[in-house]
Amino acid sequence: MDPLTSPLLTDLYQLTMLEAYLREGMEEEAAFEFYVRDLPAGRGFLVAAGLESLLTYLGELRFSAAEIAYLAGTGRFSRSLLDYLAAFRFTGDLYALPEGTLFFANEPLIRVVAPIVQAQFVETRLINLLHFETLIATKAARCVLAADGKALLVDFGLRRAHGAEAGLLAARATRIAGFAGTATVLAGARYGIPLFGTMAHSYVEAHATEEEAFVNYGRANPANVTLLIDTYDTLRGARHAAAAIKRLAAEGIRTRALRLDSGDILTLSKEVRALLDQEGLGEVQLFASGNIDEHGIRDLLAGGAPLDGFGVGTKLDTSADAPYLECAYKLVEYAGQPRLKTSPGKATLPGRKQVFRRMSAGMMAGDTIALAGERYAGEPLLTRVMEKGRRREGPADLAAISRTVGQQLQTLPENLRRLEGDPPYAVGISPALIRLREETRNRYA
Amino acid sequence: MDPLTSPLLTDLYQLTMLEAYLREGMEEEAAFEFYVRDLPAGRGFLVAAGLESLLTYLGELRFSAAEIAYLAGTGRFSRSLLDYLAAFRFTGDLYALPEGTLFFANEPLIRVVAPIVQAQFVETRLINLLHFETLIATKAARCVLAADGKALLVDFGLRRAHGAEAGLLAARATRIAGFAGTATVLAGARYGIPLFGTMAHSYVEAHATEEEAFVNYGRANPANVTLLIDTYDTLRGARHAAAAIKRLAAEGIRTRALRLDSGDILTLSKEVRALLDQEGLGEVQLFASGNIDEHGIRDLLAGGAPLDGFGVGTKLDTSADAPYLECAYKLVEYAGQPRLKTSPGKATLPGRKQVFRRMSAGMMAGDTIALAGERYAGEPLLTRVMEKGRRREGPADLAAISRTVGQQLQTLPENLRRLEGDPPYAVGISPALIRLREETRNRYA
Repeated sequence: MDPLTSPLLTDLYQLTMLEAYLREGMEEEAAFEFYVRDLPAGRGFLVAAGLESLLTYLGELRFSAAEIAYLAGTGRFSRSLLDYLAAFRFTGDLYALPEGTLFFANEPLIRVVAPIVQAQFVETRLINLLHFETLIATKAARCVLAADGKALLVDFGLRRAHGAEAGLLAARATRIAGFAGTATVLAGARYGIPLFGTMAHSYVEAHATEEEAFVNYGRANPANVTLLIDTYDTLRGARHAAAAIKRLAAEGIRTRALRLDSGDILTLSKEVRALLDQEGLGEVQLFASGNIDEHGIRDLLAGGAPLDGFGVGTKLDTSADAPYLECAYKLVEYAGQPRLKTSPGKATLPGRKQVFRRMSAGMMAGDTIALAGERYAGEPLLTRVMEKGRRREGPADLAAISRTVGQQLQTLPENLRRLEGDPPYAVGISPALIRLREETRNRYA
Repeated sequence: MDPLTSPLLTDLYQLTMLEAYLREGMEEEAAFEFYVRDLPAGRGFLVAAGLESLLTYLGELRFSAAEIAYLAGTGRFSRSLLDYLAAFRFTGDLYALPEGTLFFANEPLIRVVAPIVQAQFVETRLINLLHFETLIATKAARCVLAADGKALLVDFGLRRAHGAEAGLLAARATRIAGFAGTATVLAGARYGIPLFGTMAHSYVEAHATEEEAFVNYGRANPANVTLLIDTYDTLRGARHAAAAIKRLAAEGIRTRALRLDSGDILTLSKEVRALLDQEGLGEVQLFASGNIDEHGIRDLLAGGAPLDGFGVGTKLDTSADAPYLECAYKLVEYAGQPRLKTSPGKATLPGRKQVFRRMSAGMMAGDTIALAGERYAGEPLLTRVMEKGRRREGPADLAAISRTVGQQLQTLPENLRRLEGDPPYAVGISPALIRLREETRNRYA
């Protein structure tokens, strides 16, 4: 029962609802849509991510004999449900915004169309994957906007990411958003993401002197020398590094960069840069890490910090200022009839929907959420990516997704490229959809 | 390369440092300690969790042929490092606070003693596991304190947890802290945690009427009937539920509870309770969910909400108000010599340490962080749990850990049982440790 693929990684109610649907013979087609109700404070846009993980999950979804045996052993489920689950496959259609698409509140990122038992069952893991990858791709894109092409960004967040899968998926999500790479080795192995690494303070501490540590590290890793200089005192560390760099250079080993990880990075980076330049080491770059997010990147660069790159960790991989999105996966149609809920603050829009995006002078100029059958100004963003349980195209190329994000960020209105995300992007709802909401409300609520 | 067990789920610098250590012949014994530098705002204590996951990881740590082949293919590493990794095993000792122990800033949760290459290599995944499980056990313990034995708590957080492992480990961490159970089926299968489940709004929406949905659900799941009443209008939903409950009762099916998931839960819970009581349905319980955390639980119960239980989800499984801890895994000794770093704001305490806890009249009365060799008033909290790579005892029993947390919460000073966590618990540092810090600073920094 591998947690990453097991269908038991779900909520109990999915199974109890299936029990009821099967007993009632409710097997007609349903449409569910996944969307984000409200953007977190300070977020002006979201970056679609997680589709690739979802397609893999749906394509491989099946219950093993051990999983069926566990469910049988709970005594909660009927034999007919267990038999049904043993043969369970996802055979539905999936419509989606391509990964890397910028999107906004209430716009469906995914539409699942399948017999209701299937479309319902996949809810929990679908949300779990789309929510997290979108959350991190969005945070990472904000870092990319803050860096504004002036500094290279690297994901350093694995250690404080929430578990193994979060660390791995965060590396992918940050790469999509435009990061140069990650420190997470497995993300290199699995996704081909470029790897970056330096050294820990412990490495310096274990040596008698900083200079000795730096020289030894360079000799052992001559192709990739980045030296961490803040173990004791950053400026003293920079002088020790300068001495080591020259010794290494005499051996033909080039030092790429120094890393600062604490203290007043703005001031220290200027002082270290000046020291290196005085020593004739102008080609050695400076890299900063330590509690940095998009605000830190923006402020440091705006202050003239001569930094060539940032390692962005905890605040990125946990999306610390907005650690979750108010997202939902909601029934919008069953048995040919639109459906909705009207709970206060959580009301839904019924019916299968499409998002149309208008461009003006090469810039995003406004979206309309309309019914799927409508023709509207602008480009329809949702496309069918899975048909009868089979994906229509092979795995998406990460570099291509990353280019999509880069292009879309360039077409984002200037006010949304600033980190405050205010005023919000214009998203309208088509009159036909508003009428359908009223009609459906009158029918059911 | 299973992300949950692969040694490649690590930072690149672990491997580049190993390259250097091996080249330098630095294989002497090191001691590293994991601790939390500062408690997040509003947190008065932490609950130790993650040791079981860590013991499993260390015990099974090895590189597969595919992993070695990947590393070889990067061209970054020497043949001697790859050969070393192919035979890599963790053969060190581990000292730990037992899972469920309450602890505070700067107190070591774990001490690893092993050849430096081993003790260093395990850093990333060690932090990844201990950090997350401790984060969530702590948040969950706060919910338990807020509920104060008056309401049953259930983990509903999987869908917005950060990936699969986070959802699964959160179920375990919340169970340790005193939750009654989880909605996550796989956590039932893997840890034996009791499962709870209700129904989704979509289930109600897919039916022509709420009453029909409720009756059908009850017939399909007669042993566990909890009805969700806020799809359209909570009070109307409660009336529909009352009618359904009576129809089910006539068929011998007992309804356990109604669930409220939106709106003004304080007011609605009182109104629904009154309605049920008027209908002679006093034994039907009320359960609330929807954006609830320890503050919501405390405020609802303080306001007299007649709630019997809470489903706690997103804010719990993401620890939304404090989504990370300022934790570190730091070298404290190498080759018999204490070590430290002095980076501003991130300085460490050198040497192998022990935590002594004093009790007074059955209550926790203050801790002292001392050197491991010292004898101090109070009980020493760190014990050896792994020796030469072998764990000394089998897997800990979840129920026993949960009892430990419950007992320790009862001995926590009253001011820390309140959610503000202020003033902080008294943690002193032994004079010998302070002297060692000065001596070590003078030697290295």
